[in-house]
Amino acid sequence: MSDDRLDDLDKHIIYSLQKNARKASTSTIAEQADVSASTVRHRIRQLEESGIIHGYCPSIDYEAAGFQLLTLIICTAPIPERETLAQKAKKVEGVVAVREVMTGHENIHVEVLGTDGDDLSRIGQELDGLGLEIEDEDLIRNDYDNPYEGFRTFDADES
Amino acid sequence: MSDDRLDDLDKHIIYSLQKNARKASTSTIAEQADVSASTVRHRIRQLEESGIIHGYCPSIDYEAAGFQLLTLIICTAPIPERETLAQKAKKVEGVVAVREVMTGHENIHVEVLGTDGDDLSRIGQELDGLGLEIEDEDLIRNDYDNPYEGFRTFDADES
Amino acid sequence: MSDDRLDDLDKHIIYSLQKNARKASTSTIAEQADVSASTVRHRIRQLEESGIIHGYCPSIDYEAAGFQLLTLIICTAPIPERETLAQKAKKVEGVVAVREVMTGHENIHVEVLGTDGDDLSRIGQELDGLGLEIEDEDLIRNDYDNPYEGFRTFDADES
Amino acid sequence: MSDDRLDDLDKHIIYSLQKNARKASTSTIAEQADVSASTVRHRIRQLEESGIIHGYCPSIDYEAAGFQLLTLIICTAPIPERETLAQKAKKVEGVVAVREVMTGHENIHVEVLGTDGDDLSRIGQELDGLGLEIEDEDLIRNDYDNPYEGFRTFDADES
Amino acid sequence: MSDDRLDDLDKHIIYSLQKNARKASTSTIAEQADVSASTVRHRIRQLEESGIIHGYCPSIDYEAAGFQLLTLIICTAPIPERETLAQKAKKVEGVVAVREVMTGHENIHVEVLGTDGDDLSRIGQELDGLGLEIEDEDLIRNDYDNPYEGFRTFDADES
Amino acid sequence: MSDDRLDDLDKHIIYSLQKNARKASTSTIAEQADVSASTVRHRIRQLEESGIIHGYCPSIDYEAAGFQLLTLIICTAPIPERETLAQKAKKVEGVVAVREVMTGHENIHVEVLGTDGDDLSRIGQELDGLGLEIEDEDLIRNDYDNPYEGFRTFDADES
Amino acid sequence: MSDDRLDDLDKHIIYSLQKNARKASTSTIAEQADVSASTVRHRIRQLEESGIIHGYCPSIDYEAAGFQLLTLIICTAPIPERETLAQKAKKVEGVVAVREVMTGHENIHVEVLGTDGDDLSRIGQELDGLGLEIEDEDLIRNDYDNPYEGFRTFDADES
Amino acid sequence: MSDDRLDDLDKHIIYSLQKNARKASTSTIAEQADVSASTVRHRIRQLEESGIIHGYCPSIDYEAAGFQLLTLIICTAPIPERETLAQKAKKVEGVVAVREVMTGHENIHVEVLGTDGDDLSRIGQELDGLGLEIEDEDLIRNDYDNPYEGFRTFDADES
Repeated sequence: MSDDRLDDLDKHIIYSLQKNARKASTSTIAEQADVSASTVRHRIRQLEESGIIHGYCPSIDYEAAGFQLLTLIICTAPIPERETLAQKAKKVEGVVAVREVMTGHENIHVEVLGTDGDDLSRIGQELDGLGLEIEDEDLIRNDYDNPYEGFRTFDADES
Repeated sequence: MSDDRLDDLDKHIIYSLQKNARKASTSTIAEQADVSASTVRHRIRQLEESGIIHGYCPSIDYEAAGFQLLTLIICTAPIPERETLAQKAKKVEGVVAVREVMTGHENIHVEVLGTDGDDLSRIGQELDGLGLEIEDEDLIRNDYDNPYEGFRTFDADES
Repeated sequence: MSDDRLDDLDKHIIYSLQKNARKASTSTIAEQADVSASTVRHRIRQLEESGIIHGYCPSIDYEAAGFQLLTLIICTAPIPERETLAQKAKKVEGVVAVREVMTGHENIHVEVLGTDGDDLSRIGQELDGLGLEIEDEDLIRNDYDNPYEGFRTFDADES
Repeated sequence: MSDDRLDDLDKHIIYSLQKNARKASTSTIAEQADVSASTVRHRIRQLEESGIIHGYCPSIDYEAAGFQLLTLIICTAPIPERETLAQKAKKVEGVVAVREVMTGHENIHVEVLGTDGDDLSRIGQELDGLGLEIEDEDLIRNDYDNPYEGFRTFDADES
Repeated sequence: MSDDRLDDLDKHIIYSLQKNARKASTSTIAEQADVSASTVRHRIRQLEESGIIHGYCPSIDYEAAGFQLLTLIICTAPIPERETLAQKAKKVEGVVAVREVMTGHENIHVEVLGTDGDDLSRIGQELDGLGLEIEDEDLIRNDYDNPYEGFRTFDADES
Repeated sequence: MSDDRLDDLDKHIIYSLQKNARKASTSTIAEQADVSASTVRHRIRQLEESGIIHGYCPSIDYEAAGFQLLTLIICTAPIPERETLAQKAKKVEGVVAVREVMTGHENIHVEVLGTDGDDLSRIGQELDGLGLEIEDEDLIRNDYDNPYEGFRTFDADES
Repeated sequence: MSDDRLDDLDKHIIYSLQKNARKASTSTIAEQADVSASTVRHRIRQLEESGIIHGYCPSIDYEAAGFQLLTLIICTAPIPERETLAQKAKKVEGVVAVREVMTGHENIHVEVLGTDGDDLSRIGQELDGLGLEIEDEDLIRNDYDNPYEGFRTFDADES
Repeated sequence: MSDDRLDDLDKHIIYSLQKNARKASTSTIAEQADVSASTVRHRIRQLEESGIIHGYCPSIDYEAAGFQLLTLIICTAPIPERETLAQKAKKVEGVVAVREVMTGHENIHVEVLGTDGDDLSRIGQELDGLGLEIEDEDLIRNDYDNPYEGFRTFDADES
């Protein structure tokens, strides 16, 4: 088993945050697991310090906000520079997510928000300028995050 | 210009939340924009009600938590079922994200967490059972979300 | 030589119209070729009746008109239905051009104008519903028509 | 809605011209929309000056004219040179259309008319000499332009 | 060594015929190998009866003869029908060569001569009708046969 | 029609030779077309001098002769060197046919006969050394030439 | 760390067997690790019973033995049948190895030994008959197994 | 026939060893073939000296041993360096098998065992550093070796 570093309380906390990080109050999480709120706060701090939780972000529906050009740009980085280029891609203005995949081609997936065709062209050129080869570009239709059900540990999570 | 539905305060709020949704307090956001906290709370509620913000989630480093098999499964859905199948894929146990792309092949990208080889096989079979054709499976090395820099509207955001 | 069906006057007329179909006046075309305007009118009618000229259309810059989603949808039609499906694709609302290519895959290229993501999805579904397999979808950045230089036959065309 | 820059009269004019640019008389267009011919002429001039209408061309059936080698050459341009190379491709003798697509591979589609095998080889070599990588070449069977139905605004357009 | 079924005289005969089957006279072949013409005739008959030589054909330059559409159509046959479909493809009017390749996709390569676009379409449809999936179609520019140099066994062959 | 350079007698001669170049006697060809043998000899000479017929070769079944490694090597030549490299490939020992295709990738198809694995490796290396990029290698199972049925002009050809 | 189920002695034993399973005597393995031979025998039995060691086989150079057609056949199995079809492929006569890969296409790699072209065709047809789609077939040139260096635990292994 | 270098006793010996190299005792092999054990030992030595048998290795189930990242890395070597790079790949720590395939792309298949994501990244970088282009990486699910049934020569083998 690979998940021996997390006990049931850790899993319950992560799962609760995945369901809604901003609204899950420490006290509700504690109550469901029948521990004190300070225990939960302590555990959350540990999870953050160990890097297991490395941030919180809102899920944005850019199309609802009037943007039509949320685009997935699939790139190939040379193997030895993959991690470095993924970091650099994050800094290109308009990039909203970067995913690094362990394979030889199409190993960096970049989500970008272009305001118009010129802006999308500029982003493509900046990614190319970093040394990434652009393989494909497609409009993103929908993008969902999901809690990891393997972490559901207490009945109260079901609601 | 496509972003006329959001004014500078909306953008500032979204940008602040993207930087860290759980820790960005309403009052700090308000202060930076020189408005009242209740204005910010009201705006956040509007952004949530309009669906522009549709949730908050923590970024989890599953490898740090002892899981080695975070995997990107790239699938093809038949065009008329793409949206439906993306919804169904979300419900497969182990799926932690689903991205729907506007193209003919490789149009649904699913992130899954497998506990071991058997579990990964099971997930593949469940996705296949939904009617998705699995095109490729690759280990995810890193996965970053980024605030949208186009929304940075007040100097105080820079810190 | 395969172009023995057109004489120099025909070529001059086609070339002049390709340079600007709406503004090329019959009399200027005639003057450059040192024939009468009625000869040119007669020839144009013959070219139209033989189907060599089968219409005239303006080149539209949809992005300048405020549309961001002019898209090339590359499809595969089963070989025996390629011509029929190309005809049917023309009738899908939003389709602005169809090109039929003599090959086994990616043999129908459709240009479509989507007003938003939902509209683009609808068009994709209608094309799929006709029996076309959608292979790829990409935004069109620019689209130029060119006169065929092989038809330049009189010095005056050079201006 | 992205088409707020065009009002119904603009759309009616573009649609009428798309149905047959050379034969659509200003007065008929005006009559159908119940405005004066001079209003239509004024609007057409505005559409041309804004670059929304950037030319008019005849649709030629090259096969009917005795040419068998109308060919689609699909090329890849390096991302930062895509727009420049699309412009240069237009100037290669034999090129009758160029389409620039927002993606990493197969991002420039060139239509060429070859008089024979040697001519087609020459065109391929000139495109290669510009710095384009040729990916595929296929005979074009048919090529249709279509009015954009989204612009049909007056009943009289239906005829 | 896999060629133990052919002795040097057999190889010399095949090589001489490969250099020019119609013009290689039995007596010249015999003289070069220092055997009698009747020995050569006997051996040729044996090579034909064993199926090692299964015909003779001229190499035709169809373009020189005025045909522009000599085309390579690359097809996929289902594995169990590959040999049968290769035989059937030979009977389609316009097919001038068929090559069967031991692999899963693109395993039947068909050379066809089309008189025009309609004829090429008809051939594609007939191949499709047999159960072949057409993968690609490309114009053939040149087509050369070569003698097998491994069969050059006598000095006189060098001329 | 593109075949206006050949009359019915030319077509009859080519077709007869395609059925079996070595065994088709001039007198039989003449008799079937109701012309003199000297007319046929004269026409054959003209077809050869014009390059329309540029050689005759036997069809060899290498597997029947004990060779297991007749292989199709599909290569890509840079566009401007395609014709030159096709010529050079012909001179590599073991190459028995070269086909040059008008496209960007996989544009030179080479048939080679390897005596064993080492020999096949050597051939691959020599082709690579010429500047060809090897894309695929597959065993050839069968290889048929066919007369062009469009040239069947006299009833007697049917036997 | 994922390898906590094996201690250094287990690793030493596996590594020694990987270097040459048939010739590694129990006593030498024991001596190098400074344990008794009966301890090694006991451990080997445990490794076999747990399925960690599930057999021993010789590495055969089939080409040295006179076989030219050792071939890698890359297949696609439908996801839910992948494991079953891999088992069935093992039973096809001529199959010498099967590898099952966790992905959507090209997920079963089969090594087969064909005695000649007919035999290779038969194997292809039997694999196809099982429900596998054959994607590619290529000759295998060399095939090496390697001990896992991560298991080298005692100095004496170095010799 | 290509297998004339091995007689029935050789085949019986290889087949018996393939069934289980470590446990097949010389005397049982001898008994089944009705020859003396010393004859078998002599033959095995000859097979080893000729390189037909070039080692023996255990089949390891790495997943059962606690490793989740047994991975197939498919690489392309430049043709003239394929054999050299396959040899070098064997020396990369973590590589447990190398297969060299006779084709232009994806011609070296490497099996590697990674202890974690960092280790797998390191292996990819070392392979890249050798000059191999990594095309794809996929988890290996199962890996079976099989005796070659064509070598089953005595009834007793059936048990």
